[in-house]
Amino acid sequence: MQDRTYAADAEPGSRATVAGWVHEIRDLGGIAFLILRDTTGRIQVKFEKDEMDDELVETGLDVSRESVVAVTGDVEEESRAPTGVEVVPDSIEVIAPADTDLPLDPSGKVDAELSTRLDNRTLDLRKPDVKAIFEVRAEILRAAREELRAVGCTEINTPKIVATGTEGGTELFPITYFGEEAFMNQSPQLFKQLMVGSGLERVFEIGPIFRAEEHNTPRHLNEATSIDFEGAFCDHSDAMDVCEEVVKGVYEAVEENCTAQLEAIGVADDFSVPDGEFPRLTYEEAIERINATGALDQQLVWGDDLPTEGEHALGEEIGGHYFITDWPSEIKPFYIKDYDDDETVSTGFDLMHPRMELVSGGQREHRHDHLIEGFKQQGLDPDEFEYYTKMFKYGMPPHAGWGLGGERLVMTVLGLDNIREAVIFPRDRQRLSP
Amino acid sequence: MQDRTYAADAEPGSRATVAGWVHEIRDLGGIAFLILRDTTGRIQVKFEKDEMDDELVETGLDVSRESVVAVTGDVEEESRAPTGVEVVPDSIEVIAPADTDLPLDPSGKVDAELSTRLDNRTLDLRKPDVKAIFEVRAEILRAAREELRAVGCTEINTPKIVATGTEGGTELFPITYFGEEAFMNQSPQLFKQLMVGSGLERVFEIGPIFRAEEHNTPRHLNEATSIDFEGAFCDHSDAMDVCEEVVKGVYEAVEENCTAQLEAIGVADDFSVPDGEFPRLTYEEAIERINATGALDQQLVWGDDLPTEGEHALGEEIGGHYFITDWPSEIKPFYIKDYDDDETVSTGFDLMHPRMELVSGGQREHRHDHLIEGFKQQGLDPDEFEYYTKMFKYGMPPHAGWGLGGERLVMTVLGLDNIREAVIFPRDRQRLSP
Repeated sequence: MQDRTYAADAEPGSRATVAGWVHEIRDLGGIAFLILRDTTGRIQVKFEKDEMDDELVETGLDVSRESVVAVTGDVEEESRAPTGVEVVPDSIEVIAPADTDLPLDPSGKVDAELSTRLDNRTLDLRKPDVKAIFEVRAEILRAAREELRAVGCTEINTPKIVATGTEGGTELFPITYFGEEAFMNQSPQLFKQLMVGSGLERVFEIGPIFRAEEHNTPRHLNEATSIDFEGAFCDHSDAMDVCEEVVKGVYEAVEENCTAQLEAIGVADDFSVPDGEFPRLTYEEAIERINATGALDQQLVWGDDLPTEGEHALGEEIGGHYFITDWPSEIKPFYIKDYDDDETVSTGFDLMHPRMELVSGGQREHRHDHLIEGFKQQGLDPDEFEYYTKMFKYGMPPHAGWGLGGERLVMTVLGLDNIREAVIFPRDRQRLSP
Repeated sequence: MQDRTYAADAEPGSRATVAGWVHEIRDLGGIAFLILRDTTGRIQVKFEKDEMDDELVETGLDVSRESVVAVTGDVEEESRAPTGVEVVPDSIEVIAPADTDLPLDPSGKVDAELSTRLDNRTLDLRKPDVKAIFEVRAEILRAAREELRAVGCTEINTPKIVATGTEGGTELFPITYFGEEAFMNQSPQLFKQLMVGSGLERVFEIGPIFRAEEHNTPRHLNEATSIDFEGAFCDHSDAMDVCEEVVKGVYEAVEENCTAQLEAIGVADDFSVPDGEFPRLTYEEAIERINATGALDQQLVWGDDLPTEGEHALGEEIGGHYFITDWPSEIKPFYIKDYDDDETVSTGFDLMHPRMELVSGGQREHRHDHLIEGFKQQGLDPDEFEYYTKMFKYGMPPHAGWGLGGERLVMTVLGLDNIREAVIFPRDRQRLSP
């Protein structure tokens, strides 16, 4: 429809064809309004029953809500209309009539369960607040790519079908690949590391990852979007610098380009770009401060995982993003490098939002012999990972990187309650469709 | 390494630490050179044996090729050096020594088989021409996204794990999803259509698709990158307009931002931005012109698929991109809309490059009853696709879209012989690793 005018662009004094969904029909007797909604907003179409063609009026007022229509007419100024203009139609075409029995009310007047919304995302994303979430999500991904390019990264795409999992874990979805056993990749970790040893040096990837975790929580998905960075000649501190730049750059882009969306979602007042440097606490400081909050029944000791309630108590105290560094080696993956002067402490780090962990990263083990040892200690057969480990024999520079959960980023930027609200068609323990 | 200077940035008169790979060592007797390579290029390091510390000279000249080193010293002008400068070192650190027995020679002096290159991508991408392919690829994806945003699209991400395939075909990789049968998605087709019925109206996705095709040719992959567009209130002609804009925009971006890469790949002279409008031939015109070339033993008749040799003959005659429109309905997928006035002709179209098909698209069937009929005629059970078809009852606008093969685009832009050269870690019938 080349000659279509968007609702937001209809100028008084012009003729226009507007097309979209029937949002509402308000019949006031002699006069009636059809509110048409398209991707830019809503526009009022006025029917004056006594002065207009009967068939036109009938078509316009009998059409069911959420039907798709095209209306042609004169655009006139009307201060009482939602956008200050209205269309006085001389023709209306019902392009796709909608059943009157809608599974979900896109006007947003009736609340729906999340599962009903997810079953009917087409209707759900007709609501301006839900649509806005995905416009912000798109802006977040755009901004993240721009920030990563700005620090010298080349975008890469790595395979999602793999012969072996990153950590050889059991949390992999098995697939049948021409009769061979294969898996859906849980992380681009090994591939992005192989690329920092290439001439690209710094790479990023934004793509799907797959985890067969049994978790069913408001912050876990079985298919998620991972924002991955890896850089040659970087240590964990450099990687944290890049991470901080990307996260802040994302917030700045949302502030600059998504004002209307933040309003629509209803979070404009709560939104702010993080200011100041993200504090960097060592794991040791973190457990001390968590212990001091008294939030836990038991005092944490070196080597403990940080329980969620502990992280929340610390996050509340700090009131913004913060890094936890210098983790005990034993609770970080084997491919994370330990400090040279203390092998019990790892260069691994997490970026925390007060609500949850966003990022996991660290400097990587780039020494071939240490890496092979790491596989063995993990109970993995290094031979199965030879395609990866052998490249460490041919000049693998020191490198560091991280993975940032895309949906968690959207969720925390927008203050969403459930991670499923940050993905159009989520995959979880129960949900495989749509 | 915060204080590292890139090879390309080393200024005469400064002190610098450069870090990278040992590209070559040239020992001329009293004087010797170590050529260091990093992501920005190469730089010469000069060793004067009689005037320098013996240990320094020994370390610098005994280090094996492709080892990772860091060299600190004074940067001096030297017109005979490759970049016009050289480093006079006062320290050298061997960060990661390389085995002398390299599976692939990154200097590019010895040609390697494609399979050896793919097994050793880390080394392969140290070659400037191979690295450049992936820098261009990243630019192509960046430009495609920008073009798609410019025509009003919102970027979406749709699931790769699905309960049913797009076309219910047998060319799907089966996965086990928490005990249930599922598949890796072969196309975002159904999901992007569901989104044009939402308030987003126009969407795009760039992501992986998976096809369990037995093909093993230089232009097929089993895991590929698809660039997908779908737009509400678009017909096939609008969709072709968008397609043409995206493809031309990609070429323009490569011309503008990848001069050095085109030189490195050796295709700078062959590269040009397509000029003029892409011709739009009907299928009927296409078979007439193919028949007239005499390239085929048998004359094509209405309803025949176009054989590759025929497409090549036509492509050679046209000498650039062209669309083929108005295909027989019976050889296009059921979700493509037929013309209202002739149901034997489909609104499906292909965008052809003289070497191969790049894009497949069309206006979609948006009428619920016709869609259900289409599933049945295809031998598919519409009930299995109810999550998709039911949304067509609630106001689905007319819409059109297309899918563009990302690797084929890279391949044709750069004149690559084999599609595997356009993806870092390809997946094909034989290759599942790395």
